[in-house]
Amino acid sequence: MTFFDASGDSNEPSSRVAFAGNRLDRRSEHRGDDCLAEALASPLARIFAFGDGRAFLRKADDGFDALHSLEELHHFQPDLENAVLLGFAEGEAPRIAAHVRLNPEELPESVKAIDHRSIYIQGLIKDDELGQMAQGASLIAWARSHHHCGRCGGETRSKAGGYRRECPTCGHMLFPRTDPVVIMLAVDNENDRCLLGRSPHFPPGMYSCLAGFLEPGETIEDAVRRETWEESGIRIGRVRYHASQPWPMPHTLMIGCYGEAVSTRISIDQREIEDCRWFSRAEAAQLLSRQTGAEDLSSPPPGAIAHHLIHGWLTHGG
Amino acid sequence: MTFFDASGDSNEPSSRVAFAGNRLDRRSEHRGDDCLAEALASPLARIFAFGDGRAFLRKADDGFDALHSLEELHHFQPDLENAVLLGFAEGEAPRIAAHVRLNPEELPESVKAIDHRSIYIQGLIKDDELGQMAQGASLIAWARSHHHCGRCGGETRSKAGGYRRECPTCGHMLFPRTDPVVIMLAVDNENDRCLLGRSPHFPPGMYSCLAGFLEPGETIEDAVRRETWEESGIRIGRVRYHASQPWPMPHTLMIGCYGEAVSTRISIDQREIEDCRWFSRAEAAQLLSRQTGAEDLSSPPPGAIAHHLIHGWLTHGG
Repeated sequence: MTFFDASGDSNEPSSRVAFAGNRLDRRSEHRGDDCLAEALASPLARIFAFGDGRAFLRKADDGFDALHSLEELHHFQPDLENAVLLGFAEGEAPRIAAHVRLNPEELPESVKAIDHRSIYIQGLIKDDELGQMAQGASLIAWARSHHHCGRCGGETRSKAGGYRRECPTCGHMLFPRTDPVVIMLAVDNENDRCLLGRSPHFPPGMYSCLAGFLEPGETIEDAVRRETWEESGIRIGRVRYHASQPWPMPHTLMIGCYGEAVSTRISIDQREIEDCRWFSRAEAAQLLSRQTGAEDLSSPPPGAIAHHLIHGWLTHGG
Repeated sequence: MTFFDASGDSNEPSSRVAFAGNRLDRRSEHRGDDCLAEALASPLARIFAFGDGRAFLRKADDGFDALHSLEELHHFQPDLENAVLLGFAEGEAPRIAAHVRLNPEELPESVKAIDHRSIYIQGLIKDDELGQMAQGASLIAWARSHHHCGRCGGETRSKAGGYRRECPTCGHMLFPRTDPVVIMLAVDNENDRCLLGRSPHFPPGMYSCLAGFLEPGETIEDAVRRETWEESGIRIGRVRYHASQPWPMPHTLMIGCYGEAVSTRISIDQREIEDCRWFSRAEAAQLLSRQTGAEDLSSPPPGAIAHHLIHGWLTHGG
């Protein structure tokens, strides 16, 4: 576990976003085909339970507990064959993720099925467990969308503790998927303002950084320039990487950047975003201070990488 | 196309790696289901042909041409149903990628099927076409491994110019895949040296930066620290992003970083790498000057992001 402590820099931007607190020892080079069975046999094993895009949390004295013993997990009808060994917590305690079949409506009063976003926004579990949950949610979502082979359609089997799936029919091997998304704050240095937009599915009044999937055959910098251009008509010059964030809806890597705007006239692509405008420093500061739900405009909550990008610009000038 | 020109900084590290010269107008928000058929109907359409991990190049007066007209393409038995519209070159000229079924051994003398790595190392085609080829190769590799639905096993159909696949049986939608890989140069500032290793599949004598897939639920910085720790036993402190590179074998995004080493004793994981050692500034400079094939030690060729990371450290101190 020691390598996590080496960073020695609690100011690393990527360490300050939600879902980034995972400190499990993954031992990625040592995932044998028996590792999951061995881990499940450990009395120290604790398991995240996922169903239908939600995690099952047990009410505890001081909040909620996302980790279940194997005995507790059995009440939820787990699919252990397709479970994933995430890694080991201190003291060699295995952490596992499993899909469960129990309908959330049949859950006892003491257990709640809550979507991942709400768990982070409401701060229901500790940072390190939130990070482990992100890892587990992503892997379970990937596994469930790959029970069949994309080449031949045959049924795949879980291997290497769930980190690989194999097709016995054609021999195809499948590996977990992580989708890089660029999310950027375009800054107009001359007029000291930043570019924020809103997509139709945002809560009312919320503005955030523009974002989009990085495409095959594209650098991070070119993706930042293309997405900004396509959505807002603004041309970006220099791009500076700021921070990254695991985002388990379902298995995304957010890559947060600053972009130097070299044009100022906005031309919105309404297929993609509903509105887009320049915010002065004072307007952006006001936006950050109000969270979703306020009557007026608001920004994404702390923990969201967009929040950190805006905050970083206000603090350091981008 | 204007947004590409905005960068105004020819020193952007990500613009100087191989496969990064793609300047097609992708129009990612405007991919209707007819866009591929419309593009194929244009007399200006030019098509990349891929088979078995290789691109088909026609011998031309001054080297090779990777772009074929639709008429030329028909000689190679193209799978046009699963072709992909990459975007538009200047003058509204569509660029398309297609898998072809002709066995490379049946090719006429004037056409060669060459693997993507050799095309870049030998500099067989222009930088912008090399970048377009990377985009096409990645998308075709993705499409071919997703002809069936991972959820239900049914056959999928190409939509949105090849940028989406749909399963008519269960309704599942599939999107192109890009795998983020971290590649890093660990630097021991105190002793002014950097860490390079070699994996068993490298050409004899070649040393390069350590690298590995970023995992679900991980930040870029944590992936750099974990991979370095797992492969070499070296602990990394601060991580600094340097550049990214599209890598079409098959659909990877290389994320190049510098890592500040905070320990110096190497402990190799021999499942993963064959050797790993510290290189002084003079040794690294000597390594960079010799390419693969020299009798002595060598480094990856110019264009490889590892080459740029080492060169950047030698020039700017990392």
